[in-house]
Amino acid sequence: MKTYTYEKSTEWFKRAVKAIPCGVYGHFSPAPYVPIDAYPFFAERAQGPRFWDVDGNEFIDYMCAYGPMVLGYAHPEVDAAFEAQWRQSDVNSVASPRMVELAETLIDMVPTADWAFFAKNGADVTNLAVTVARAATGRKKIITIQGGYHGSAPWMQSPGHHGVMADDLQNIIRIPWNDIAALKRVIAEHGKDIAGFMATPHHHPVFADNALPAEGYWQQVVDILHKNNSIVIVDDVRAGFRLHLGGSCEKYGFKPDLICFSKAIANGYALSALVGVEALRVDTAKVFHTGSFWFCAGSMAAAMACLKVMREQDAPRVMAELGKKLTDGIVEIAANYGYTMKVTGEMAMPYLRITDDDNMMLQQEWCGECTRRGAFFTSHHNWFLSTAHTEEDIKHTLDICDEAFKLLKEKRD
Amino acid sequence: MKTYTYEKSTEWFKRAVKAIPCGVYGHFSPAPYVPIDAYPFFAERAQGPRFWDVDGNEFIDYMCAYGPMVLGYAHPEVDAAFEAQWRQSDVNSVASPRMVELAETLIDMVPTADWAFFAKNGADVTNLAVTVARAATGRKKIITIQGGYHGSAPWMQSPGHHGVMADDLQNIIRIPWNDIAALKRVIAEHGKDIAGFMATPHHHPVFADNALPAEGYWQQVVDILHKNNSIVIVDDVRAGFRLHLGGSCEKYGFKPDLICFSKAIANGYALSALVGVEALRVDTAKVFHTGSFWFCAGSMAAAMACLKVMREQDAPRVMAELGKKLTDGIVEIAANYGYTMKVTGEMAMPYLRITDDDNMMLQQEWCGECTRRGAFFTSHHNWFLSTAHTEEDIKHTLDICDEAFKLLKEKRD
Repeated sequence: MKTYTYEKSTEWFKRAVKAIPCGVYGHFSPAPYVPIDAYPFFAERAQGPRFWDVDGNEFIDYMCAYGPMVLGYAHPEVDAAFEAQWRQSDVNSVASPRMVELAETLIDMVPTADWAFFAKNGADVTNLAVTVARAATGRKKIITIQGGYHGSAPWMQSPGHHGVMADDLQNIIRIPWNDIAALKRVIAEHGKDIAGFMATPHHHPVFADNALPAEGYWQQVVDILHKNNSIVIVDDVRAGFRLHLGGSCEKYGFKPDLICFSKAIANGYALSALVGVEALRVDTAKVFHTGSFWFCAGSMAAAMACLKVMREQDAPRVMAELGKKLTDGIVEIAANYGYTMKVTGEMAMPYLRITDDDNMMLQQEWCGECTRRGAFFTSHHNWFLSTAHTEEDIKHTLDICDEAFKLLKEKRD
Repeated sequence: MKTYTYEKSTEWFKRAVKAIPCGVYGHFSPAPYVPIDAYPFFAERAQGPRFWDVDGNEFIDYMCAYGPMVLGYAHPEVDAAFEAQWRQSDVNSVASPRMVELAETLIDMVPTADWAFFAKNGADVTNLAVTVARAATGRKKIITIQGGYHGSAPWMQSPGHHGVMADDLQNIIRIPWNDIAALKRVIAEHGKDIAGFMATPHHHPVFADNALPAEGYWQQVVDILHKNNSIVIVDDVRAGFRLHLGGSCEKYGFKPDLICFSKAIANGYALSALVGVEALRVDTAKVFHTGSFWFCAGSMAAAMACLKVMREQDAPRVMAELGKKLTDGIVEIAANYGYTMKVTGEMAMPYLRITDDDNMMLQQEWCGECTRRGAFFTSHHNWFLSTAHTEEDIKHTLDICDEAFKLLKEKRD
């Protein structure tokens, strides 16, 4: 099996570090990838479930742009909807009817949604959700989950992150996932200050196993928070529309007050949405929140096409099945070579970790060997399936996984 | 002269208020427009300096999407650059070489830029700038200008805004524009806590006259802040590339530490940039800041084309000349009818106000009458010129202005 090299990627990265702090920053930073020479840094083309890097290497992409790509890159129906709107009007001085149509679409699809509000980043709407909760309750504090991620604003970050002040975190209380006792303790102590609770529908931290909600967890959260007159916010930015087309809360059987969507809503066009219950409409209207490109119509037309195709394809079922096939296959191959691969989270966006190691070195090495053979895996973040991945892609990927395990085994024997 | 009516806009707005809090929110909200029946709410098409609303009414657009449109809507060269990149790859799992090329372009054009960082919203980079200033200094407080706007995050808002806590504002100190004595007092009192100073290059508040920097103001700001080991941040989101292609600081003859760009950088494609001096490269690299769509390559290809066309056209000079012609014409026409029109700010983005009134009612009425005749003006925000506006557009606009003043005069005689 051919292994890739990255001469041009490396040349581009040398230019990048001169022109850009970190070279490539944020969640795209190559820093967590070890071995670093196994990964491409720059890409030139993408189609379906694949991208091609600047060296011409072809990858089956299991990161899906870290979530936005859900139907395959350059999906013809979504791109045609974008293009038709874009040729008429994208940015403008007044809003587009597409915004109204998209809001109506979300209200129709998502039981929690009595209204919708649009922005660009996931963090634009997680920020807004918190501000609405404060506006509605007149309280300051937000309960979130240890290891949870809601964007990169300072208040969402961990203490000690560069540039983050203690003041940024003074109204954030972090508790463990699935821990109702901890939630009750916080409410008992700070109840009259608690504006809301924000968490992802299932727990999908980086560098750690993912965890589904325990049976009844979310309903207890809702009951406890509502009894305290506090707001329940689901950050569905990463999981939204991959687990259920009505919002991931529908899969887990509960109704929050606010849901934040973004990544997969438009198959890669920049867009985010906050949806919520009737009782929060007026407070949301009164909060001032806006951005220069939030009314661009192209991404809204794309979102309507993306949501339509996802419904037609029953996309969450397709992705869950593909993810199960992929991860079952990897677990079996790992076992053949004497390794234990632990699979956690949701199969449409699974997290994998080789447990035969007390750090991540083995997992990193294995992901690197897969990637340099054309299956783009990261070692520290959940992967993503799309509806464009085929059974044949999975089969080829499993062949790559087999060779990578074989290599690991041989190196250690 | 034909006056417009807005039957379809009104129908869409009725649907909008059911589906979206406020109907149309943020800086696009029709709330500040009085008379409200003079304005369109929804648009279907845009080309050059014009847009067409859902009723088919045609407008010469002096808001330019509130800044992003700088070369005319659907500019062929910018759109071709976007399209070529978009067809190859827009969103992806790894970065694009276009990001490196665009960073190199900005380093080449902008003397302050030793590096560049990209995001989506203007507020993404004003937020980052403040975090970098805190990271670099280990201090908390930021000095900003009363009435200044740096995005809609809670810390950037005025006290009393819905959902904004006193805690959000505890590290923000606001002083009047052009007031060196006030700056010195703040430094004397809080110097050891001052991380940085952030202001727009000239003062362009809403609902108030704009103001250029006083002679020597910015150099004094830089000297005072640097003597205090604090960071100087220019928020060039609204003015950037309209006043000078090297950043507005070049026009006013000073060198800040960080500049925030967005709106006009890509003629309407969602993109923002933070650029800065070498001394802040490492701190910027260490701050974690990222977003799902920040590496989309299409808007970066569009930005390079936009910056190239702006250089070829000497866009700031063209817009300043057009703005001077427009505002000189309006002042003269106003005088013919016995009104005094005060023009402030920069001519590429002038702020106009009829002074024969102690509130904004006259200005609002006049802007409404112009708008319903096809010259899209707001009464409370600076306008924007683009290089797509022609002498003929200005001439036609002045005819509209004349008729609107005539109408005001007749109603009051």
